[in-house]
This record gives sequence, structure tokens and C-alpha cells, in this order.
Amino acid sequence: MEIVPLRPDIEQRVRASFGRQKLLALYGAGITGIGKGYFEVSLPPSELVLRPAGFFVGGVIAGVADAVAGYTAATVPVEDPYFVTVEFKINFLNPAQGELLIVRGNVIKHGMSLTIVQVDVYTTAGGQETHAAIALVTMMRINKK
Amino acid sequence: MEIVPLRPDIEQRVRASFGRQKLLALYGAGITGIGKGYFEVSLPPSELVLRPAGFFVGGVIAGVADAVAGYTAATVPVEDPYFVTVEFKINFLNPAQGELLIVRGNVIKHGMSLTIVQVDVYTTAGGQETHAAIALVTMMRINKK
Amino acid sequence: MEIVPLRPDIEQRVRASFGRQKLLALYGAGITGIGKGYFEVSLPPSELVLRPAGFFVGGVIAGVADAVAGYTAATVPVEDPYFVTVEFKINFLNPAQGELLIVRGNVIKHGMSLTIVQVDVYTTAGGQETHAAIALVTMMRINKK
Amino acid sequence: MEIVPLRPDIEQRVRASFGRQKLLALYGAGITGIGKGYFEVSLPPSELVLRPAGFFVGGVIAGVADAVAGYTAATVPVEDPYFVTVEFKINFLNPAQGELLIVRGNVIKHGMSLTIVQVDVYTTAGGQETHAAIALVTMMRINKK
Repeated sequence: MEIVPLRPDIEQRVRASFGRQKLLALYGAGITGIGKGYFEVSLPPSELVLRPAGFFVGGVIAGVADAVAGYTAATVPVEDPYFVTVEFKINFLNPAQGELLIVRGNVIKHGMSLTIVQVDVYTTAGGQETHAAIALVTMMRINKK
Repeated sequence: MEIVPLRPDIEQRVRASFGRQKLLALYGAGITGIGKGYFEVSLPPSELVLRPAGFFVGGVIAGVADAVAGYTAATVPVEDPYFVTVEFKINFLNPAQGELLIVRGNVIKHGMSLTIVQVDVYTTAGGQETHAAIALVTMMRINKK
Repeated sequence: MEIVPLRPDIEQRVRASFGRQKLLALYGAGITGIGKGYFEVSLPPSELVLRPAGFFVGGVIAGVADAVAGYTAATVPVEDPYFVTVEFKINFLNPAQGELLIVRGNVIKHGMSLTIVQVDVYTTAGGQETHAAIALVTMMRINKK
Repeated sequence: MEIVPLRPDIEQRVRASFGRQKLLALYGAGITGIGKGYFEVSLPPSELVLRPAGFFVGGVIAGVADAVAGYTAATVPVEDPYFVTVEFKINFLNPAQGELLIVRGNVIKHGMSLTIVQVDVYTTAGGQETHAAIALVTMMRINKK
């Protein structure tokens, strides 16, 4: 899938919002892709995010996937986009072990009030990607005022 | 629902496993209830787990709920219980704001290989509980050997 | 849980809507409980809804659960209640075999635009109920005009 | 995605199993695609499967998607494949209205005991497909003996 560039003001707003998220910073997560309806984050393994057996903690994957879903929804060009998660579902497909965890969000439906985001989680090891998890996330746009 | 006391060796094993989870410690989460097929964790608001607007981060709630589901499954008296999350679904019901986040797991089906856990998340404010989220979690027992 | 009686005009509207659903009639499903935020349907086993092995077809259970979620949402006293299903999740807990399939919907959150319904599915055999499935359903209220 | 032909004996077994499902026949559903890890069904609109407003009933879509997930899992070449649905999640993306409902299942993970199937539902109108729904289904292989 080709990534459509974001309007610069939206990209700046999404990146600034990402920068305020303390937990993602703590995880060592960084933005590795951004476009219209697309957002990607990568994070390295660390003591904080791994189970003792060396796998990424499921709750960390779920938490990052939820955050990525929110930023993905926010790449859609609407005025005053403030989204909350209505519900979230994730299937863990393969053991999440490797050099990097890559979390990719794609908008699959952008509606008036609801936006549905698919999030695919991969691990990389030796140049090969493994599909670690897939999530479907329903976001609702809120009028902050 | 009445809480059925756990066999002491199982309780000790579950508590020790909880103690090894760095992320939950970082969140300030502590065990506030444990029984056969039941596990409860509480955590206070803190800069790390709140959105700027003062609500608990959805990804933190999801992560803690996933962890609680795992410990809940582990309270069932089986030999060598090592569970992985197959899939996880959460609905956010009300804004998660208050003095405490309480996350309660109940086993609703304990099968040969699969265990289904319902997790209810509450916030307390002024002595009143609000139902913040509900999750259904499918866990699979793995033979470690 | 005690059932709160419905306003008669709402009950009449919900029952009339149920009567127009051809598929539920075909399944032999009938209303066996109705109240504010509560709706219950029961159906007998028949060739149409059973697998050859004698279990209720999962897709039938899911379909009835979805329909029950809609009627449950419609018992909430709002003007012009027209709901569509945003998403639907069901866990099958036990083999669905018995003399009757009972499908119970309860509103767990009634919001401005979204209503969350929990649906519990039971089978009865020899006077005993077995928890066959549990579903969480997100409904959205639509302005028909 | 290219469709990989099925081993003839497996294809015959899957088609025979489909032929025994009374409900799908009643819906007018027919097989329109089959391959290794792939199964597709199409059905026309009819009084039985439409809401009065002309949309395919959500419960019918969910039921067909669940059935398709089962047949998709059964296209994987294992001995004695008997699958039950562990859990099922579907998001409705767009109003399901058109000349045909097309339901496509793809295996996204085939494990020792669990198989995860993604099901995409489309409607066609005037030669154009609309993404009506997406589902994730967890199936478990059962030893019948």
C-alpha cells in the first residue's frame, strides 16, 4: 500500500501529540511512518516491555496498538479531531520476539462520527517480518467544546 | 460474588509472578483481591498513566486488563499453568477518571486448553464506583516443556 | 437482576418490530422476557438451527444475539430509536445443546449516540442452564430523517 | 492475492460439508471461490435476509461470516479437520446494500490447535464493491474421537 503524504499542519499536530505521550517515550517508541490514514511506530526490546521469556508483553503490544489507532485516526483531515477509543480487539498470531516491534495503523473506514482502524503488529528478526498481532479498533470523534 | 480462597501454594506462585512484572510496578499497581478464579488489581492516577485531560490512558487500561486476565487464569488449580493471550476485546463504557482504577478478573469458562476471563474495570470517586470498561479475554494454556 | 417494566408504548413498538423479522420467526424464536434495558428470546432446537452433531449452529446463535442486542437497545426510552450494529463480539463457552436456547440482552451503557449491550446465551437441559456464549455489542443510534 | 488450488479430496470434502448446511441453502448462498486457506460465498438479496429498509440483516452477515470462517479453516490440509468457533468479532463498515453479498475468508494464522481467519464482506452495486464488514474469527481444531 502506497503512503499518501499528510498535510504539513496535520503531520505537525499529530507528531506534537505523540511527543506528549509519556508512556510511549518510556517504551522507546518512535514514529517510523506517517501518511493520510496511516501511522507507524517502532520500538526496540527492553526490560520494561519484555516478558522474562523474551517476548514482548501482550499488554504493551495492546497499549501501543491502541495508541497507534488513535494517531492513525488523527491523520484524517478533519477540524478539531479528538478521538476516544470505543472498543478494541486484538488477536495475537505469533510469538512477539525479535529486534524490533513494528505497529502499523490503517484507517479502513472514516465515517461521520466513527473511524475504524486496522492495526497490524510485526516483529523483525534477521530481516524477516513476522505477523505478531492484528487489531480492529473503533474510535469516536468527540466535540471537545 | 463471594471470593473463594486460593490454595496457599497457588496464591504464593501468582503473587511471585505478579512481583516480577516491571510494568505493573511502574504503574503503581497492587493486588487488592485474589481467590479461586478471581484476581483484582488497583492503581492510583499518576502522570504516567493519565492523558493530559486527566483520564486514564486507554492503552494502560487495556494493558492492565490483559495482565489481570493472565493472573486470573493462573488462579485456577492446574499443574504448570503457563497462559498466553489468544485474543482480547475491551469496550470502554465511561470516562476513566477518579481516585483509583480497579481492575477485576473473573474466570467465566475454564476449559482443557482455553480459559475465558471477563475483566471489569471501575474507577472510584467520592466512594462511588463507575463502570469504566469491560473486557473478554481468551487465554490458552501452553505446555512449557 | 430485577426486570423493570417497560412503558407500554415502547413495549408495543419493540414487539411489533420483532414481529416483522422473518428470520427469527423462521427459527421459531419467541420473546420470553422484556423490560427497561432487557430483552430475552428463546428458541427450540430444529433441523434449521442445529449442526448435524446436534449443537445449535454458531452463526445462528450469533445472529440471534445480534438481533436481541438491537431489541434490547430499543427498550431504552428515547424518541425515534433506530439502532445499527457498529460491531459485535461473541465468545462461545460451552457446547450449545439442549431443549431450549435462551438469549438475554442487558444494556450495560446507554450513551448519547452509542449503546453497549451484553448478551448471554444459555441452553437448558433437564432444568439446568449452561452458559453457552457471551457477547458484547456496540449499537449506534441513527437519525432516520 | 492469488488463490492456491486445493487438493481435490479436500475441496470435495469442503464442498460436501457446505452442501449439508441447510441455513446457507435457505439464504441462497453459493460457493464462488475456494483455494488453500481461502473460501468465498456469495448470496443475493431476498426477503429473508434483508431488513425492511433494504439492507442485509447484520445477523445474517455475521452468521454467513462465521460459516465462511469455518469452511476457510477446513481448506487447510490437516487430517480429520473438525473446527469449532472459539470467538468471533465483526465490525460493520458500510450499509450492506446491493446486488450481491460476497463473503471472503482468508486464513491469517494456522497453528497447531488454533486457526485465525479474517473475513471480509463486500456488497456489489453497478460493478463496484463496497467493504461492508470485516471479521476476525478464532477457530479451534477438535479431535472428534
